[in-house]
Amino acid sequence: MDFFDAVNKRRSVRRFTDTPVPESVMRKCLKASVLAANSSNLQPWEFYWIRDEEKKKKIVKRCFSQNAAKTAKEIVVSVSRIDTWKRNRNMIIEEHLKKGKLHPLVDKYYNTLIPLAYTHDRFGIFGIFKRIFYIFFSIVGFFRPIQRGPIYKHQLFESVTKTTALACQNFMMALVAEGFDSCPMEGFDEKKVKKLLNLNWQCHVVMIFGIGEAEEGGVYAERFRIDDDLVIKEV
Amino acid sequence: MDFFDAVNKRRSVRRFTDTPVPESVMRKCLKASVLAANSSNLQPWEFYWIRDEEKKKKIVKRCFSQNAAKTAKEIVVSVSRIDTWKRNRNMIIEEHLKKGKLHPLVDKYYNTLIPLAYTHDRFGIFGIFKRIFYIFFSIVGFFRPIQRGPIYKHQLFESVTKTTALACQNFMMALVAEGFDSCPMEGFDEKKVKKLLNLNWQCHVVMIFGIGEAEEGGVYAERFRIDDDLVIKEV
Repeated sequence: MDFFDAVNKRRSVRRFTDTPVPESVMRKCLKASVLAANSSNLQPWEFYWIRDEEKKKKIVKRCFSQNAAKTAKEIVVSVSRIDTWKRNRNMIIEEHLKKGKLHPLVDKYYNTLIPLAYTHDRFGIFGIFKRIFYIFFSIVGFFRPIQRGPIYKHQLFESVTKTTALACQNFMMALVAEGFDSCPMEGFDEKKVKKLLNLNWQCHVVMIFGIGEAEEGGVYAERFRIDDDLVIKEV
Repeated sequence: MDFFDAVNKRRSVRRFTDTPVPESVMRKCLKASVLAANSSNLQPWEFYWIRDEEKKKKIVKRCFSQNAAKTAKEIVVSVSRIDTWKRNRNMIIEEHLKKGKLHPLVDKYYNTLIPLAYTHDRFGIFGIFKRIFYIFFSIVGFFRPIQRGPIYKHQLFESVTKTTALACQNFMMALVAEGFDSCPMEGFDEKKVKKLLNLNWQCHVVMIFGIGEAEEGGVYAERFRIDDDLVIKEV
């Protein structure tokens, strides 16, 4: 499907027909998701395709049994993580070495700057230390532009969730391009969803997708966007 | 362009040719961005297309004069906001009324729940009050699934930035579909960029796009993704 046709066609669908979503479609769309742009190529995302019927029922309940979950043929939970960077970073470096060389800038970036940004503890103590260190660094900012973050754990979460959302949009668009639909849900009990999927404190649930074929009336309202000139500004 | 072709073609391009990007392409792609999925339809995004040459030079400096900014033919700054919800919410409600009715659930959602989630002060005091109130609410969570957030200001920022990222991926893909490329930059001095664009504390700069036609060698490395089964899990 043409990209702009897919953009126009994509809507949040809240009721799905009984038509199953072929496994091949699910796999193709999930694979397309992780080709999205991402921060420092650290790929901090995870997509849980819920195939176990018992788990699926539980997820539906944790989404407050809303129609978009209840009638969904497939459910996917997208997750952002601040703890997979080390594994992924090592793989990136390995790949560079396999190709013959690790540029000193790449080395410094992945072995010094990334650990500084990504290392955190559960209670945010590291974040406070970084903030204190940062006071001195920010003096430099009076004289030239400097990187301002992420410093605190919650800023890092904003960053990994941002990256994961890029993949999420690819996923929704891919489903449309394959003739299916989805509803990205943010109404769910994150604590209970995390428990079900054995996710630790270093994970956030980004959104949960109900997936299927749109039922007639499954889109609840006409698309409404505020005027473009309120949000697209030429300056 | 076919959606999956665009997915495969999209790469972060860090050096651009001198070919200009037609205005019509920029407008078409920006318009496609804001058709992305978004949280509660509150459209908390803004896209600043930097057209003024002086401003553009300043933005390049604030992006540490990296090639992706320096050689970019066009620059767009994407911003997420926690302060446009009231205006946008009012427009949504107006639209419902224009169509003839405001469903009591919609009314309650936009006039009670959304203000509860979106009202914040600069210093996070409201967030602390919400957290205290939430302790009582969370007792309910022992018995049934409940919504766990956003409570703090930084959680709301994670939410609006997440939504804005959905639009960002659409933007990058749209450019590819139109035969152009981009580099989403996160390396910039956010404080100085915000100052230049007169953005208040209720805004985060999500990413800055360098845009143009890819120069040969403008993609710095082959695409590398970790194995799919590390991030796509069937459970």
